[in-house]
Amino acid sequence: MSQRFKDSLGIVNVGLRSFHDNVVAAGGRSVHVDWQPPALGDRAAGWALATLVNHPRVEQGNALALRRFLDAQPVLREVCSARDFVAGMAQGRRLILHAGPPIAWEAMCGPMRGAVLGAVVFEGWARSIDEAARVIESRAVELAPCHDHRAVGPMAGVISPSMPVWVVENTAGGNRACSNFNEGLGKVLRFGAHDSNVIDRLRWMASELAPAMQAALSRCGGIELKGLIAQALNMGDEVHNRNAAATSLLFKQLAPALMQGEIATHRAATALSFIADNDHFFLNVSMAACKAMLDAASEVPDSSMVVAMARNGVNFGVRLAGTGSHWFEARANPVDGLYFPGYSLDDAAADLGDSSITETAGLGGFAMAAAPAIVRFVGGHARDAIAHSLRMRSITLGANPSFTLPTLDFAPVAAGIDARKVVDSGILPIINSGIAHRESGVGQIGAGVTTAPLGCFVQAVEELARRIPFEAALP
Amino acid sequence: MSQRFKDSLGIVNVGLRSFHDNVVAAGGRSVHVDWQPPALGDRAAGWALATLVNHPRVEQGNALALRRFLDAQPVLREVCSARDFVAGMAQGRRLILHAGPPIAWEAMCGPMRGAVLGAVVFEGWARSIDEAARVIESRAVELAPCHDHRAVGPMAGVISPSMPVWVVENTAGGNRACSNFNEGLGKVLRFGAHDSNVIDRLRWMASELAPAMQAALSRCGGIELKGLIAQALNMGDEVHNRNAAATSLLFKQLAPALMQGEIATHRAATALSFIADNDHFFLNVSMAACKAMLDAASEVPDSSMVVAMARNGVNFGVRLAGTGSHWFEARANPVDGLYFPGYSLDDAAADLGDSSITETAGLGGFAMAAAPAIVRFVGGHARDAIAHSLRMRSITLGANPSFTLPTLDFAPVAAGIDARKVVDSGILPIINSGIAHRESGVGQIGAGVTTAPLGCFVQAVEELARRIPFEAALP
Repeated sequence: MSQRFKDSLGIVNVGLRSFHDNVVAAGGRSVHVDWQPPALGDRAAGWALATLVNHPRVEQGNALALRRFLDAQPVLREVCSARDFVAGMAQGRRLILHAGPPIAWEAMCGPMRGAVLGAVVFEGWARSIDEAARVIESRAVELAPCHDHRAVGPMAGVISPSMPVWVVENTAGGNRACSNFNEGLGKVLRFGAHDSNVIDRLRWMASELAPAMQAALSRCGGIELKGLIAQALNMGDEVHNRNAAATSLLFKQLAPALMQGEIATHRAATALSFIADNDHFFLNVSMAACKAMLDAASEVPDSSMVVAMARNGVNFGVRLAGTGSHWFEARANPVDGLYFPGYSLDDAAADLGDSSITETAGLGGFAMAAAPAIVRFVGGHARDAIAHSLRMRSITLGANPSFTLPTLDFAPVAAGIDARKVVDSGILPIINSGIAHRESGVGQIGAGVTTAPLGCFVQAVEELARRIPFEAALP
Repeated sequence: MSQRFKDSLGIVNVGLRSFHDNVVAAGGRSVHVDWQPPALGDRAAGWALATLVNHPRVEQGNALALRRFLDAQPVLREVCSARDFVAGMAQGRRLILHAGPPIAWEAMCGPMRGAVLGAVVFEGWARSIDEAARVIESRAVELAPCHDHRAVGPMAGVISPSMPVWVVENTAGGNRACSNFNEGLGKVLRFGAHDSNVIDRLRWMASELAPAMQAALSRCGGIELKGLIAQALNMGDEVHNRNAAATSLLFKQLAPALMQGEIATHRAATALSFIADNDHFFLNVSMAACKAMLDAASEVPDSSMVVAMARNGVNFGVRLAGTGSHWFEARANPVDGLYFPGYSLDDAAADLGDSSITETAGLGGFAMAAAPAIVRFVGGHARDAIAHSLRMRSITLGANPSFTLPTLDFAPVAAGIDARKVVDSGILPIINSGIAHRESGVGQIGAGVTTAPLGCFVQAVEELARRIPFEAALP
């Protein structure tokens, strides 16, 4: 022992950094390990984790959920009106879908209100925005989350019955999901804008763009999206905030098919020009593909795999495969990003939209290493993008060999967020996101990076632990 | 002095590595600097370098040449027959262009012979390959380098009068350059294949594809290529061996324009499908753009900037801005790459083609950091791609702010190879390349990475030194 104290001592410090700092300040050698107790020291969460970690039922459920997710084969199948896909819109029911977990009209953030108002006018249920507000306040319109109706929508995520939707089918599982059409950037409904240009564009999309897309799709017999997304990842997209390559690849498949279909040439050309001018066009297709892949993994008992992350502009919600349709919610974190000239964090709405379904599927922020160019849009450096993708490996069940990251020598993207690992490590899922103005009608003011709040995952883990008694783990 | 020997010694070893190895083996501390004398110790080259380094006339020439190159604005202007662009093909002259520096028929490698034979049949100057050989041997056909006629062609680089060409105009300098059309991969003329499928495809390209492309281009009034290439670099292309993004971006501009033009819909659709199925389609456009940018910098007296690197399958040739149309040649280096199943280095022709014009312009191998996914095609790891781009900075006059590398936080690509720096450092320009079978008629058998041979640059530097007497440097 006395000899030991004569040796030069090296210290490994775990926990409070100040111990390490003092040793270094005094000229000593120390390595600091950045560690925190699970769930930031929350006892109940710690107990829930102890129940679930290595629990055979959870492991079994997770293996099944991950397998179903990895096996999914999303195919862009058709275009139809939302009312023809969303059962709740049948027979003229006035249902409007929105992003994130459920939220009442009164509690909605500005951009979501703006989008709902615009949708009411678009549907012809009111002739003006003022009248639309009265219609909504009279409870003549139902509101429900997209996710409850096999749908996803970016930002406000507003989908009304007459809007066209992309329908994606997971041919491995037979389940289908949909998303609306992308309107481009600037003043658009999904950011809460609703002036006559916005409504006119929505009408053109329903009457012209959608039939053109449907004609092209039926001509080419559907488009395999897994291969297309894999290619886009090798072309600098993460298919959430950067869809330049994926849009081009989709365009390349649609254009020849569209020309061979029955759409008049000038209409087809207008449709193609609209797509060619909007590098975000693929986003909604990407989201529907992710939803279809993740829905394949939903409703798997005992699984702690996250199958949805979505924001309604107030709260962030997550769903687990093992806890059905229940939403676990917490206040959304602010978005750290790049703002368009004249805007700042003070003008920003909270994190918003179903587009975090891409991160849930291991894309978006999880696949940022594939898209170093995105830092020009969301901020940061190329090395941050790579670090994000590497860090996300710590909180997933596995990796997805279908989606690879060229800068990491084609390492597979992380796949299947494990709520247990999020709570245990405190490493939060990273999310790339657009930023909407907090007020209705303004539109997008920036883009950036944020994280899912820990609280959702703590609640989810606690609920799963309640459903799986500890005894069940005994042999 | 005695105190110095008591201190712990650290060694910096320059030159022979064995000194360093011995010190380390004996437990000493040593850092090895990888240094070689200029031009591998060639005295004449060293003297030429001493003349040219910091020579005010060379510096002035280089500043002008680099400025003209960086200021160039290549625009894809039109499509026409080679005979309408290449002056030497006027009035029915039987001229066939080929890649690289000048080479006689007898000395040509297999793939180039195969391509020339195919071109003679395509032109109708012979009815069979055998007859074509007799026609060529009777000297009834002239052969000349593409580069001598404002043209560039990939691999064999064969361009005959009836072939359509892309015409790129540098609007800043007014100069124009052209390249032929890309036929896709597999059995194609540029790899020396010339069976009836190859000839039929060439005929279809001339009669159908070219008019469609011309109609689209005239409709959209030309396509700015600098911005398009810049975008493609941010989408994982290096626009030499990887053109997936650039082809998609070109396609996105051509498709709507084509639909608004006068081409029959089914013909337009066939043309678009051909492009959509060939990720290398943009290569020839990229090459013509690089040629137009570099020609802007040619014929600048005293400049040691490299304005062309090209291979004829036997020799590698370079041209400097300051030495006019003279080719400096050396044996081409072998290509280290990935071979298609069943083939190996033994089957390979030597490095071939004008496509190294992309590297001369700071793209291709120089911009590999933009295209980590290319290692799947040419071999190596993502970190090699980044290292190549970093190393090339050592041998250029400057950098090109128009073309940036996302993985290096949007650092500009190296621009303007300085022959002096190549000779001084021994760092050879890196080149991504396709690999042709050594025999006529087989086609592509792989792709890989190679370097330009030092000998060309040594000769070029010596010639430039002869033209610029040392006295001129004195004030």
